[in-house]
Amino acid sequence: MAEQGGAEAPRVLVVAGTHGNECNAPWLLRHWGTHPDALASKGLDLELMLGNPQAWGARRRYLDRDLNRSFALELLNDPDLQDRELDRARALLALHGPTGTSPCAVALDLHSTTAAMGNSLVLYGRRPMDLALAAAIQADLGLPIYLHEADGAQSGFLVERWPCGLVIEVGPVPQGVITAPICRQSQLALESALGALARARDGQLRLPQALTVHRHLGSVDLPRGADGEPAACVHPVRQHRDWVPIGDGDPLFISADGTPLPYQPAEGAEVPVWPVFINEAAYGEKGIALSLTRRERWPTEVGWAEALIALMISGN
Amino acid sequence: MAEQGGAEAPRVLVVAGTHGNECNAPWLLRHWGTHPDALASKGLDLELMLGNPQAWGARRRYLDRDLNRSFALELLNDPDLQDRELDRARALLALHGPTGTSPCAVALDLHSTTAAMGNSLVLYGRRPMDLALAAAIQADLGLPIYLHEADGAQSGFLVERWPCGLVIEVGPVPQGVITAPICRQSQLALESALGALARARDGQLRLPQALTVHRHLGSVDLPRGADGEPAACVHPVRQHRDWVPIGDGDPLFISADGTPLPYQPAEGAEVPVWPVFINEAAYGEKGIALSLTRRERWPTEVGWAEALIALMISGN
Repeated sequence: MAEQGGAEAPRVLVVAGTHGNECNAPWLLRHWGTHPDALASKGLDLELMLGNPQAWGARRRYLDRDLNRSFALELLNDPDLQDRELDRARALLALHGPTGTSPCAVALDLHSTTAAMGNSLVLYGRRPMDLALAAAIQADLGLPIYLHEADGAQSGFLVERWPCGLVIEVGPVPQGVITAPICRQSQLALESALGALARARDGQLRLPQALTVHRHLGSVDLPRGADGEPAACVHPVRQHRDWVPIGDGDPLFISADGTPLPYQPAEGAEVPVWPVFINEAAYGEKGIALSLTRRERWPTEVGWAEALIALMISGN
Repeated sequence: MAEQGGAEAPRVLVVAGTHGNECNAPWLLRHWGTHPDALASKGLDLELMLGNPQAWGARRRYLDRDLNRSFALELLNDPDLQDRELDRARALLALHGPTGTSPCAVALDLHSTTAAMGNSLVLYGRRPMDLALAAAIQADLGLPIYLHEADGAQSGFLVERWPCGLVIEVGPVPQGVITAPICRQSQLALESALGALARARDGQLRLPQALTVHRHLGSVDLPRGADGEPAACVHPVRQHRDWVPIGDGDPLFISADGTPLPYQPAEGAEVPVWPVFINEAAYGEKGIALSLTRRERWPTEVGWAEALIALMISGN
């Protein structure tokens, strides 16, 4: 144990409004800022930050580029690249990055989605500390986990620049709309995460024997015509059915003339697959109608909790 | 009857994408443009127009001002006012206005909303021809009608510049998202409108004995703190309950700390009231959390159908 007064545990960065048209978490953040007792912080020292204040002011996802794709080192370290989101990413890191002037060791990034993801977690890769934190939250609340990895088209996520971090992703809710259930779920997931981090700080983090992840396989665009415009939309039986498996030949899209278009896996591909982010509004411009995953059950490893405990006790 | 070949009935303007982030109708419009048989036009000569192509390109509601508030005469006729939406409004009128180079007599404007309006109609004021058209659609499909009138804060709607016109409003759907049911409902309502106009053209329009309207009383903003930011959001029992009456003391909002805030009618005000456009994302900036209406049953008048028949036969 530390000397009188206690060595301070590493601080935790809580980010809302990384996308300026996702309104629920920024509203919560503002309330927590003026009513600290409204959030069960478990004695952790929190830094509450609005991710992209300029985009938030405009109620747009971003101004120049997606802030949550701007944390790739090759972007951050290129002195010739200058725009509002890259400037913001660099400023956030300079302030609250792990070696910033007011450093944080963990980043929790609160998002919402138009897809029916429910209350869910997104991990980027298989960092042991992230897996420990996600396993603890899943044991607490049962939240599904989307393991986003090996996606060459999508990188540079905010939480990747901190030693430990994940996204809390709640939906469905339209962009620009605040609803009480989305706020409630966001807060529940955040408080569960803070509880796990506090147990790690206290050396008392225990993980379940296993966790369930949905491992990213790839993303699927809408069928498009010769002009590049969508020739079909998501089939009604798929809408709001995130996490529900799709088999070979199941309806996936429906053409403008009403023809169902089935899911056709590549030769030899495993079925079923579990879809996520079905009809997320912001992914249209990325050419993503939904992403496909495999549901897998992984035994937890002793080293995961040990790594998170070490981080939260010492900051290492 | 007209001479051999027939006098052409007045043309009908069908507008989609008046708001550039409402994606369902523009997608339909594009399909109908390349597959004219996909829309039951009942022999009417249609003009299919993308309302705000520049905003649609940016997938934003508007660029400089809301196009669907830009059709007020004092705006259109002020030569000192120039912006992208006013320019577009003037161009649409010059082309397809009632005295344009390629004139249309009726305007049908297809919108979507994040509110759970279902498949619905919006009328602006009590023009007999609009009431005739709405009564015929309601008799056909049972759609609810929001009569938007006497609202000093909201004016300049597109359809007001045509002799007859109404909005088809379908939801809930997030901005930027296409779903098959929203498309289906939009097409059903449009085809019902075209059917009524074709019957008027043929001198065979018959109206039901009465129609039900929801007459606009006023709009309600979220409770706000001293800083102008929302201090509460819509109560969960109200979300997605458009058209469901609210009585004195019923929960309306919920504060950030979870306190329900009841509906408190003004002294002497009639209750219940019927809410519409609950949590429409685009109305946040207008200070509108929902609008309140009175449900009323009105006997139809003979003159309504006569006026629409006269318009569709002669263009007068």
